[in-house]
Amino acid sequence: MRDSAVDHTARGAVPGIAADRPETGDAETAFPELGREDVERAARLLAGQIWRTPVVRSEALDAAAGARLWLKAENLQRGGSFKVRGASLAVARLAAEGSRGVLAQSTGNHAISVALAARRRGLPATVVLPEDAAPGKVARLREIGARVVTAGTTLAERIAAVHDLRERHGYDVVDPYEDPRVVAGQGTATAELVEQVEREGGRLDAVVVPVGGGSAVAGACLATSGTGIAVVGAEPAAVPALAAALEAGGPVTVPVGPTIADGLRPDRIGALPFRTARASVSRVVAVPEAAIGAALRAALLHARLLVEPAAATALAAALDLAPSLGADVGVLLSGGNVEEGLLVSLLAGAVAGG
Amino acid sequence: MRDSAVDHTARGAVPGIAADRPETGDAETAFPELGREDVERAARLLAGQIWRTPVVRSEALDAAAGARLWLKAENLQRGGSFKVRGASLAVARLAAEGSRGVLAQSTGNHAISVALAARRRGLPATVVLPEDAAPGKVARLREIGARVVTAGTTLAERIAAVHDLRERHGYDVVDPYEDPRVVAGQGTATAELVEQVEREGGRLDAVVVPVGGGSAVAGACLATSGTGIAVVGAEPAAVPALAAALEAGGPVTVPVGPTIADGLRPDRIGALPFRTARASVSRVVAVPEAAIGAALRAALLHARLLVEPAAATALAAALDLAPSLGADVGVLLSGGNVEEGLLVSLLAGAVAGG
Repeated sequence: MRDSAVDHTARGAVPGIAADRPETGDAETAFPELGREDVERAARLLAGQIWRTPVVRSEALDAAAGARLWLKAENLQRGGSFKVRGASLAVARLAAEGSRGVLAQSTGNHAISVALAARRRGLPATVVLPEDAAPGKVARLREIGARVVTAGTTLAERIAAVHDLRERHGYDVVDPYEDPRVVAGQGTATAELVEQVEREGGRLDAVVVPVGGGSAVAGACLATSGTGIAVVGAEPAAVPALAAALEAGGPVTVPVGPTIADGLRPDRIGALPFRTARASVSRVVAVPEAAIGAALRAALLHARLLVEPAAATALAAALDLAPSLGADVGVLLSGGNVEEGLLVSLLAGAVAGG
Repeated sequence: MRDSAVDHTARGAVPGIAADRPETGDAETAFPELGREDVERAARLLAGQIWRTPVVRSEALDAAAGARLWLKAENLQRGGSFKVRGASLAVARLAAEGSRGVLAQSTGNHAISVALAARRRGLPATVVLPEDAAPGKVARLREIGARVVTAGTTLAERIAAVHDLRERHGYDVVDPYEDPRVVAGQGTATAELVEQVEREGGRLDAVVVPVGGGSAVAGACLATSGTGIAVVGAEPAAVPALAAALEAGGPVTVPVGPTIADGLRPDRIGALPFRTARASVSRVVAVPEAAIGAALRAALLHARLLVEPAAATALAAALDLAPSLGADVGVLLSGGNVEEGLLVSLLAGAVAGG
């Protein structure tokens, strides 16, 4: 795995970062500075709306990693991913403000999470998916009661459809990356993990989280601010959006190679997540496809958890790096929404190949 | 599914049952009467030796069942099954008594659990397996450091080997069914489930447990004694050992048909488990093979848990019966040690067949 040489000693929210880094554009100044207290507030608001997912241990994975791994099993969360945390907060606020309905574009977990949160609040939800969206996710969204609109295959086409629907119906958009409530909400997964490990008498040296649009890594940076726990971002080698942004000093669009990690396909890190994470993230690791598949299989057979490839990307990085990260390493298993066909081909390939 | 018409109104340990039922032989009188307090004592002794496994919820499975299902995820337990509970208690007692080493015969989880408990106590463990034992389990036992002896393919051959090893080395045998500590220890899984549901504000109407040699169902009867929670036993239709024993008034050997539930293959219920469960178990359900496979797949795709066929047998019964059992139904997902080849064939068959 390629390990980007990011080694920030400064940790936590850094005041004045917007003024220091004008090169990333207007988006930088459009958000309030987020801090650990925002995650703590989010956790209080979320109590009772989400499940407190377990932290799972596996002696076999510990042996493979050469460290104690603490697996935050957000694959067992409502809707099958940690994204219901941020979506629930954002939708609750919109409902309180008298929203007529919510809109989200996504290829998966964010759409499912927004639809679940909207159903809970009695709001109509419309989700815009690509025409080649996974059939399992479309079926799940319809089960939840969302209106599913398809629009082309590119992000630009989906965003255009969202704008059109907003104009026509007056619906409110829940953005997966640029909403401070969403980022703070996603941070509650890491905050719970840190607390659960402490209750078991442990103390994390590092936490490894997957990087797509950046809300997980930004939330983890907020949740661990001031604790001395290192945050490691894991992204597919095929979509190195955070590494490229750190190198460029701001979000850049990267070419997307083929990856099974459908949840980590955004080709550009969000402006708010980047701003939140840039000074705090300790390392960014590029994970090859074969390692993602192997980690998914290891989670299944050794930790007995079905995780999606995005979560397996974080586990793969932890298995590879663990001894260098410390004795106790947390892993955010971000979700468990995996297409059955992919699962079968990963397992069957491994069985056939030994 | 065939549902044996067992409907006991008496619940809890019944004093004098040995005198009432002389037909089941000497074994009946060789054990002290067990009660709920034995499970509570076992739970105190086990604290810190085992993991407190989570109770997992799934909206999709609730919808399929027509009730709230509370899944006790003992597939996430140390060693991959709830059997480490009873084994840890029994081995701890033997270690305290100055044992020179422990011996167990088993085709799977009991052997793994005894080997893990022995390693923890610094005792040598010898396990006797059939010659056709699952390669994955043999490999796992060697990893743990157990000495693996193979002996024929029948239970009688394994028992003869155990007797011989005991004579030659002075090792102590840990029986999977006839040891009161083992039965009380297995009951702690159900006791935890009941408590965890209460902490979430729920209240179980029933708990469904798999039936092999009978330690799980007996432990569940002890743990729920006096609570009004019904205990439902689920066994493969291919090995209806508890239904046959209840009909005959005592343990009888049944013909064994082919079943994927390798953990539920004992062809005779244990004498102590039968004596403990007979007056308390509410229903016994015979689960067809196709339903076991379908439930294993449902647990994986909807609850994102890898469970072994024994655990899937209990889930299948719960999915089938749930509305008739009440609004809140617990399921003991007893273990997660499944051979990868079986998993692939179950999933691939389902994908190919739709």
